[in-house]
Amino acid sequence: MYANLEYGKGENMKHLEIKKLHETYKDHIGKTVKICGWIKNHRTSSNVGFIDFNDGTGFKGVQLVYSKDTADYETISHLRIGSALVVEGKVIESSGDKQDFEIEIDHVILEGDGGEDYPIQPKRHTREFLREQAYLRPRTKLFQAVFRVRSLASMAIHEYFQKNGYLYVHTPLITCADCEGSDQMFKITTFDFDNLPKDENGKVDFSKDLFGKQAFITGSGQLHGETYAAAFSKIYTFGPTFRTENSNTKVHANEFWMIEPEIAFCDLDELMDIEEEFLKYVIDYVLKNGKDEMEFLDSFVEKGLIAKLEKLVNSQFKRITHHDVVTILKEADVKWQFIPEYGEDIAKEHEKYITEYFDGPVFITDWPKDIKSFYMKQSEDNKTVRAVDLEVPTVGELMGGSQREDDYDKLVARIKELGLADENLTWYLNLRKYGSCTHSGFGMGFERLIMYLTGIENIRDVIPYYRTPNSCDY
Amino acid sequence: MYANLEYGKGENMKHLEIKKLHETYKDHIGKTVKICGWIKNHRTSSNVGFIDFNDGTGFKGVQLVYSKDTADYETISHLRIGSALVVEGKVIESSGDKQDFEIEIDHVILEGDGGEDYPIQPKRHTREFLREQAYLRPRTKLFQAVFRVRSLASMAIHEYFQKNGYLYVHTPLITCADCEGSDQMFKITTFDFDNLPKDENGKVDFSKDLFGKQAFITGSGQLHGETYAAAFSKIYTFGPTFRTENSNTKVHANEFWMIEPEIAFCDLDELMDIEEEFLKYVIDYVLKNGKDEMEFLDSFVEKGLIAKLEKLVNSQFKRITHHDVVTILKEADVKWQFIPEYGEDIAKEHEKYITEYFDGPVFITDWPKDIKSFYMKQSEDNKTVRAVDLEVPTVGELMGGSQREDDYDKLVARIKELGLADENLTWYLNLRKYGSCTHSGFGMGFERLIMYLTGIENIRDVIPYYRTPNSCDY
Repeated sequence: MYANLEYGKGENMKHLEIKKLHETYKDHIGKTVKICGWIKNHRTSSNVGFIDFNDGTGFKGVQLVYSKDTADYETISHLRIGSALVVEGKVIESSGDKQDFEIEIDHVILEGDGGEDYPIQPKRHTREFLREQAYLRPRTKLFQAVFRVRSLASMAIHEYFQKNGYLYVHTPLITCADCEGSDQMFKITTFDFDNLPKDENGKVDFSKDLFGKQAFITGSGQLHGETYAAAFSKIYTFGPTFRTENSNTKVHANEFWMIEPEIAFCDLDELMDIEEEFLKYVIDYVLKNGKDEMEFLDSFVEKGLIAKLEKLVNSQFKRITHHDVVTILKEADVKWQFIPEYGEDIAKEHEKYITEYFDGPVFITDWPKDIKSFYMKQSEDNKTVRAVDLEVPTVGELMGGSQREDDYDKLVARIKELGLADENLTWYLNLRKYGSCTHSGFGMGFERLIMYLTGIENIRDVIPYYRTPNSCDY
Repeated sequence: MYANLEYGKGENMKHLEIKKLHETYKDHIGKTVKICGWIKNHRTSSNVGFIDFNDGTGFKGVQLVYSKDTADYETISHLRIGSALVVEGKVIESSGDKQDFEIEIDHVILEGDGGEDYPIQPKRHTREFLREQAYLRPRTKLFQAVFRVRSLASMAIHEYFQKNGYLYVHTPLITCADCEGSDQMFKITTFDFDNLPKDENGKVDFSKDLFGKQAFITGSGQLHGETYAAAFSKIYTFGPTFRTENSNTKVHANEFWMIEPEIAFCDLDELMDIEEEFLKYVIDYVLKNGKDEMEFLDSFVEKGLIAKLEKLVNSQFKRITHHDVVTILKEADVKWQFIPEYGEDIAKEHEKYITEYFDGPVFITDWPKDIKSFYMKQSEDNKTVRAVDLEVPTVGELMGGSQREDDYDKLVARIKELGLADENLTWYLNLRKYGSCTHSGFGMGFERLIMYLTGIENIRDVIPYYRTPNSCDY
């Protein structure tokens, strides 16, 4: 089909990245450059052709132009969407006002044809269709924007913590300690499922498995993180976590990334200071470093996205107790689906109301202890714990944290009271014996943040290859 | 025991971090500061006492001094190693030359007693003993150094790639595609092992499991990474990986972190340029940002460590084919345990010889295809693939990479030849149908790098909580 065209594979690939070309195009006007990339769109009209071309190094591509005078005109005019090219051409000032410059094709090498049945065409594909093309969807503008924001936000998180003296700790994913309940964790094994070794009681004999006991992949690095905070004062984790939840909702996935900082010599008030500063830093970083992507998302995904984020960065987060929130909810002239109660959790509709009531993010503190985790610091009132959830407009709960129980006896009593097994947690409990101190920490689901940053409503569209019930393709 | 002393938990914790105090101590001379931390050592002599104190924010601690004139003298003099304190005291110029300043104690609040049986005493503990105290060992100077280097190196890796325009991709850990062979992967399930659903043939029925099929946790993100390189040109992964290997050696763990960059429009020569630049960047970053830690490791773990690393940063890595390496080995006046052969892998003793021969890092390229992976680009000679291993003095293979096979037919033929299943890899193969291009990538085991950077010889001592056969404690 492309008989006249030079085919090339891998010889002397040195070229100018398109992102760098955008940054330096003025230096290249009138000169020949060599660029690589893929055809995003291709239009011809009478004697001239236009190719939208990008290598994905930046959000903005370049326009290639050619005419009857171009060598290989006929062949170039038939190049298909999705094809990979090496292009040599002259940088010229653009006559239109849509772009600053374009490239007049001089010479084209075909690296790989886009193929007859290339699924990603220059039209609006539904997100459902694109999920079924998970390995190709990053080539679309939408997912170029989303996954670039994901990468930028990751870097912002590392930068915030490292600049502020936090140690990055790789807590283990494989675990035998099941603090949050092993029924929520995937079990792992090296056994052949159809030939499991059994003990004398006919039970599966995990003493013969690789670790000599039943093992899981974890849903949190917090407990391990606390041990490092007791050595380095300020630490954070940022890694994948797993839940076995059989929930087919827009916001649940079985594999997702979490950020879990732990800070020694830090009480609940200081924790809120940190959470607020951290969140603003990350949002500000993405706004500044992902301008093109955010403008695209603002135009095509959530109108007013940038204004929403800028407002958060410039706001001061409200701080209020759970008790006072319930009072506001009770006094509200609203017919609730779930009646708000002092000793109970608050529902989605309440979260929404309270962030609208305060017109911004709200830290809700001092939650009823019976609906919160065993490791949270018990208050003098014996009813609440020093926990804090950050509620954010449109997205609901974005972070959950607490001051940790630092009193050995209280922690052990609480574990007993809840009927949790503590034999695997001796080391965790011992932190309260060997130089215990006031300490606090929080967790943030990374995908929740990316949904908030991009306006994307389905968690499946912010994870490169999502894992949800009955979905483990690719 | 500490009857006279004020106990405190969490009231008004605002304090000056010890790392910041070191940076700004000149501004504080003669003034009172509030610091928090743990007692590392405690010596008294007649009328005066000295406490080595650190909060772990930096490698260097501070010395607290007190005397008979200090309020609560008696009680303070009995404070135990490991105790957590809030200290108010005056910053004074130090009379000795071991430190620039010290803190004259004014007031002490005990956050948590170190306890009678605190296992970490100010003496030399063996690393074996400390592995059994995995949750306490980060409090020792050795592990303060090691894990700070680990955190710094992590940041250096992110910084290198982000500065150079790479996208950070979170490839999935749960997978159903088993390209490298499922026998090396942990199987995961939500089933009750003692009550497994069976199909009509008596086999375990994974269609009833959460994903509707057998699932694993992965040993590599490379194949998924390639799909994103085909959209963004330059990507990297940095996350945990798993192997079921039942190896009790100093260099194997069942859970470890990997870095796997993939680059489109990049051939093998350019890949080596990137690997070399990347490694030098990371080492240089750690040397500059971890001075105190590296000096400690140089003194107590590997003499000459810093000089070794500086030499690497300033060297130019040698590039040589596998064939030529074997010729050198054959001509060497050495009695080999394993005789070097042209078509075969090289052994540890050969790696060692060749890095000594060239007195520095060596890229060995163009390996026999039968000992390398199916996805590596086949050369015209039909015998070798465009693979490259980086061999580094003292540590051996540090990175492994290759140009990837970009020809659909050749890749499919190779998979068939090797008897690998390809039904789960359609998407991967299709990358060669839809705009295929020259591309390359490499993988680096993160722990191997940390061992090289710290001089630590056992992988168990560079992972916060290591997972090895029969070891999944904590």
